[in-house]
Amino acid sequence: MRTGVWLVGARGSVATTSIVGALALRAGLAAPTGCVTELPELRGPALPALTDLVFGGHDVVCTPLTKRAETLADAGVVPARLVAALTAELTGVEEDLRPAPTGGSQADRAATLVRELTGFRDRHALDRLVVVNVSATEPVAVPHPAHADLAALRAALAGPDDVLPNSSLCAYAAFTAGAAFVDFTPSTGARLPALTALAAERGLPYAGHDGKTGETLVKSVLAPMFAMRNLAVRSWSGTNLLGGGDGATLADPAANAAKVESKQRVLGETLGYVPQGHTRIEYVEDLGDFKTAWDLVTFAGFLGTGMRMEFTWHGCDSALAAPLVLDLARLTAAAHATGHTGPLTELAFFFKDPLGAATHSLAEQWIRLGDFVRALHAAAGGADEPRG
Amino acid sequence: MRTGVWLVGARGSVATTSIVGALALRAGLAAPTGCVTELPELRGPALPALTDLVFGGHDVVCTPLTKRAETLADAGVVPARLVAALTAELTGVEEDLRPAPTGGSQADRAATLVRELTGFRDRHALDRLVVVNVSATEPVAVPHPAHADLAALRAALAGPDDVLPNSSLCAYAAFTAGAAFVDFTPSTGARLPALTALAAERGLPYAGHDGKTGETLVKSVLAPMFAMRNLAVRSWSGTNLLGGGDGATLADPAANAAKVESKQRVLGETLGYVPQGHTRIEYVEDLGDFKTAWDLVTFAGFLGTGMRMEFTWHGCDSALAAPLVLDLARLTAAAHATGHTGPLTELAFFFKDPLGAATHSLAEQWIRLGDFVRALHAAAGGADEPRG
Amino acid sequence: MRTGVWLVGARGSVATTSIVGALALRAGLAAPTGCVTELPELRGPALPALTDLVFGGHDVVCTPLTKRAETLADAGVVPARLVAALTAELTGVEEDLRPAPTGGSQADRAATLVRELTGFRDRHALDRLVVVNVSATEPVAVPHPAHADLAALRAALAGPDDVLPNSSLCAYAAFTAGAAFVDFTPSTGARLPALTALAAERGLPYAGHDGKTGETLVKSVLAPMFAMRNLAVRSWSGTNLLGGGDGATLADPAANAAKVESKQRVLGETLGYVPQGHTRIEYVEDLGDFKTAWDLVTFAGFLGTGMRMEFTWHGCDSALAAPLVLDLARLTAAAHATGHTGPLTELAFFFKDPLGAATHSLAEQWIRLGDFVRALHAAAGGADEPRG
Amino acid sequence: MRTGVWLVGARGSVATTSIVGALALRAGLAAPTGCVTELPELRGPALPALTDLVFGGHDVVCTPLTKRAETLADAGVVPARLVAALTAELTGVEEDLRPAPTGGSQADRAATLVRELTGFRDRHALDRLVVVNVSATEPVAVPHPAHADLAALRAALAGPDDVLPNSSLCAYAAFTAGAAFVDFTPSTGARLPALTALAAERGLPYAGHDGKTGETLVKSVLAPMFAMRNLAVRSWSGTNLLGGGDGATLADPAANAAKVESKQRVLGETLGYVPQGHTRIEYVEDLGDFKTAWDLVTFAGFLGTGMRMEFTWHGCDSALAAPLVLDLARLTAAAHATGHTGPLTELAFFFKDPLGAATHSLAEQWIRLGDFVRALHAAAGGADEPRG
Repeated sequence: MRTGVWLVGARGSVATTSIVGALALRAGLAAPTGCVTELPELRGPALPALTDLVFGGHDVVCTPLTKRAETLADAGVVPARLVAALTAELTGVEEDLRPAPTGGSQADRAATLVRELTGFRDRHALDRLVVVNVSATEPVAVPHPAHADLAALRAALAGPDDVLPNSSLCAYAAFTAGAAFVDFTPSTGARLPALTALAAERGLPYAGHDGKTGETLVKSVLAPMFAMRNLAVRSWSGTNLLGGGDGATLADPAANAAKVESKQRVLGETLGYVPQGHTRIEYVEDLGDFKTAWDLVTFAGFLGTGMRMEFTWHGCDSALAAPLVLDLARLTAAAHATGHTGPLTELAFFFKDPLGAATHSLAEQWIRLGDFVRALHAAAGGADEPRG
Repeated sequence: MRTGVWLVGARGSVATTSIVGALALRAGLAAPTGCVTELPELRGPALPALTDLVFGGHDVVCTPLTKRAETLADAGVVPARLVAALTAELTGVEEDLRPAPTGGSQADRAATLVRELTGFRDRHALDRLVVVNVSATEPVAVPHPAHADLAALRAALAGPDDVLPNSSLCAYAAFTAGAAFVDFTPSTGARLPALTALAAERGLPYAGHDGKTGETLVKSVLAPMFAMRNLAVRSWSGTNLLGGGDGATLADPAANAAKVESKQRVLGETLGYVPQGHTRIEYVEDLGDFKTAWDLVTFAGFLGTGMRMEFTWHGCDSALAAPLVLDLARLTAAAHATGHTGPLTELAFFFKDPLGAATHSLAEQWIRLGDFVRALHAAAGGADEPRG
Repeated sequence: MRTGVWLVGARGSVATTSIVGALALRAGLAAPTGCVTELPELRGPALPALTDLVFGGHDVVCTPLTKRAETLADAGVVPARLVAALTAELTGVEEDLRPAPTGGSQADRAATLVRELTGFRDRHALDRLVVVNVSATEPVAVPHPAHADLAALRAALAGPDDVLPNSSLCAYAAFTAGAAFVDFTPSTGARLPALTALAAERGLPYAGHDGKTGETLVKSVLAPMFAMRNLAVRSWSGTNLLGGGDGATLADPAANAAKVESKQRVLGETLGYVPQGHTRIEYVEDLGDFKTAWDLVTFAGFLGTGMRMEFTWHGCDSALAAPLVLDLARLTAAAHATGHTGPLTELAFFFKDPLGAATHSLAEQWIRLGDFVRALHAAAGGADEPRG
Repeated sequence: MRTGVWLVGARGSVATTSIVGALALRAGLAAPTGCVTELPELRGPALPALTDLVFGGHDVVCTPLTKRAETLADAGVVPARLVAALTAELTGVEEDLRPAPTGGSQADRAATLVRELTGFRDRHALDRLVVVNVSATEPVAVPHPAHADLAALRAALAGPDDVLPNSSLCAYAAFTAGAAFVDFTPSTGARLPALTALAAERGLPYAGHDGKTGETLVKSVLAPMFAMRNLAVRSWSGTNLLGGGDGATLADPAANAAKVESKQRVLGETLGYVPQGHTRIEYVEDLGDFKTAWDLVTFAGFLGTGMRMEFTWHGCDSALAAPLVLDLARLTAAAHATGHTGPLTELAFFFKDPLGAATHSLAEQWIRLGDFVRALHAAAGGADEPRG
């Protein structure tokens, strides 16, 4: 099953790492560390092979992909020898990268995107196409009446004003072009009634929001631990220091707010109460593509005895996110192929702020993901057990 | 269901905190924080009420229980106001505490214990009796041929040499007296073929080993997190600094070895490979009843990118262990009442080194525990849904 | 030398701990841990004995001192047995506590303060009087033309508007009453030209600002370490989580700004350049009178190799501040007795934002302090070497 | 002043980094970050210029220096671009590297070393020669009667048994060849009466022991901080996790003992008492050339209030040590030129276990170092103020 992966923000760190990694896996130069869909529990016939993924995308910047890959190699995100070995392949992908459409009405820009998506699909004879948003986090979207109704939205897009945030315009174009959509960021994406209607109309699935790659990942196992042990979490305070492009964007208080909110949600929903404390994000350029998060948890045990836990997470967001982007593209394509439409709530495992999720516990999300994938494999014809 | 809880090491910190806590709960002076069996998911008719627990036990030391409770209050383990309010009740429990039997053959000492257990049961008209070992960790036991066969063991106990470690002698006496047995320590306890045979002969359940209250608890959610995300853990190094009586005991390298081994098991069994690094235990008197554990985890993500996580856990072992002692007494009594015999592998959730456990993942252990408890409640007659 | 210590914010945590501690030392119930002036290097005849300190003060709240002390004992700041043993002495100090003056013009309130200070001095036949501000941090003061000139200030105080922040009004009253002044907070205090002139006119010394008790104390030894080793500090980010009254006050962004600024000053001045990163203060009620600070320092070594250091400081501000309050009262009284007037820059060792300080390095401040104290002792008559 | 630096362990990580760095500085490709002697406070005419340093040495392994440098580049210790740019220069240094002498008596080996040292000096027309030991840490030396007397030592060296540890044989050869000696390791080196006598006889200075580059560096500012504030340190526990060649060596308990002892010395000597706790060293291969140290300090403030501090240091020992090796070579050569003989106690700033040091406080050591260097500059003729 040849599967296209169209990356919004295709020259960003996450996208570039995803592309380098997929090419390295195809060339047999790397192991699929961090790819959840390569675990024995999840592997199987329903998923497109990693070697069947074809990459395209668009970006507001135009730095060549090889240059971006070299920058990431200098920063220690990807090995320099891989980038050197994959120059030809990266140049090949460059052919399928486009500038982000600008100018004209949002309807015009959406039309351009749709043309690019269908062109990409035709050029590579793709069976499925998944648009994945890995661009910078947007500010919280301004509400607009047309968000609630598809017909009104179509009309408004043709007008002179921008009515959709960019992530939603991409979802609109994806659905219009018959592509599934994954939002790896906290931006609005497909989360508008008009877009939900469009996905339903076109029979398309979508997934999101906000890839769970660091502090929140840890929270999603520690908070259930406290809950399962009936320990009373009194406060949970987090500090996230991050450099890189993402850090600079998030230094903008508006974007910060969206992210911080999605990072805290796991606590209230897992514990059943909201402990004291806040999560902060701060830009520290020197950290580059790495992120350091420090969390302090104070909790009470039997008879109220006060105790505490701290953790420091020093992770490379791109190296954590990129394999999940590949996972999500495979899973969403397989879901589409199997006839799933609408929000893929079974993919909550991957997200900080999962669509319609009943749980924020990683372990429970893992069980739901396993059930979902096994059903995909079963539906994929005769294969009632995972390869592996 | 009046349930006796006979504590081996009844004047130790864990036992004293358990007793103070149970009395405080009975008097309505405290909330059951840390009691897993009080969670809505687990509550129900099969379990003896917390107010139905009756405490007895023995110890090698003879400091009065009220004095021990005051010491714990001074150390910040239990609130001083509770100890002051419960003086009469603590003095009441004192009546059921005995010196640890000494002198004579191990058969003599076992007989003394059996007499004390049956006396305790008769005196309080107990429906069930559970012996819980919360005494200091023993050195790794010296093997003896009689461990393998019940008849041989009975013969050997009457001889002049000690053939059983103390924890196993207590299990022997418990089973002989018709009591269930829980080992909250890493000592040998019921883990000898001869004792397994005895439990089977008497139709008794037992549980263990080594209460999971700190660093290993955290490991049992973090290691599965790395595994579920297909991240490669390169090294996991732990340092445990602890004061208190337990710390001094564990400073003995022999006892230390048993504990350290049970602390590392979770990694290999959860990850499927053993990362580099070791766990150490060290005595630091000034930490008193608190323990500080620091762990460093190095791991690789996509394309081998190196990352790291550290955590510091500053916990009060007694305040973490005591509610679990109450949980285990309730659960084991209920299992006994429902006809369970042999190792209660469904209680793996509570232990570092669980009997016959298929998993070290806390989340999976939680699911097994929930299934087990719901079955107990169902068996307890008509009650097909938890109170709560 | 009978020395009065008049505490502004006399019922706050720092003041109460200072009073309890001084009474405990006088009664021989405690050791002078944390009192710098009791170190062998600094002890000597020039300083009033700890037993010669007499306490008074005012506060906007009126909770009895014994009640405040009990609250601190419950919070683990001072030992409950000390508070119990010192009830009579605390009640004695209560006699010398006054409500903060309210109503009327600032001139009226200053006059009330002056009357109270002189009454306190007369009542106890004090040789010296030091006013120490340990009240809550004020917002950054609003500039006013009268701040620049003593005559203009006197005129303006009689008017209907408040022209001075409260800390400065206290400094004004102190100087008017012939008392020295110490500002242990980041508030404005004596740092106005008009007040500088008043201190000079009356021949009085003053000291400040902002007691250095936690994160900044650590910074003041770590930053010089990096500088002495010619290591390049790239970023220094700090998070301060604090509960207690101080935390609630500092949650007010205006007060926060003053504090944060004084916390960062040490870096630029010690390193000679300002690394990336910020310091934040956040209120977490559950931490009570304790504070947890976490700092991440990234730095480069030879050939640019990136390295990092983190520290967590878990301190009790009152227990750290109180002995320094006693030190500062003794030192300022001795300086006054020896004829020092104006800013006591030699006391920079004690402050985050020291008056006129040439250095923020704790080690250099220590040398200056030692020289200063030895000179005081020498001036105190014949004693040319420290007792001790 | 052309100055030879003969490195014992010349192909090790520290030596290779020192050589790469010195060549990079000479070529203008790097800044002297981490070089203490390049600070404005210390620069001046007495020190040989960094560009006047000439490198030679010997090692038990024979991996080419360029290969070792590439390995360090792969490990992130030195920048790959530097190694690539300096290939020719590294090949040049290779000419002056020799295998460690083996076979024959220790007298034979010493004679070989002396020949190599004098050959090196003659070949490069060196004004001064400094031997610096940066080889792996030795086990604690076995005492021998000949250590006490130079004549007895000379006789014993000619015998069949090894009487000196290798570090001391190198010091013996250095002194015999008229070279100064620096021991950057905790090995015995020149610390034997017979060698002290030889240094005196030949009028040569020497320095040591054990470069202070990580956890102990931090301790040497934090311990004085607690002391200056009269805070009572209750416990200080340290864990050092290290990979690389040094880690593997130190995993040997015998070598470990020497290192651990020198790491703890700073506490007792700075605080005036020995707090509880220990320092451990453990090998974790995955950490490579980096080291992670974690320390927990518990301390009491006023009235006994318990507090705590932790720090994590994640450093690259080679990148921290190499610039100090250059500093020590320059300083020792300058001291030799100025007529200093015997132990250079003024260089305590650089060492964990300094020769004859009165203080372990980094700040005090810094003052002594500054005085010493200024005196060197003054003696260097007319230059009474630092360049810079």
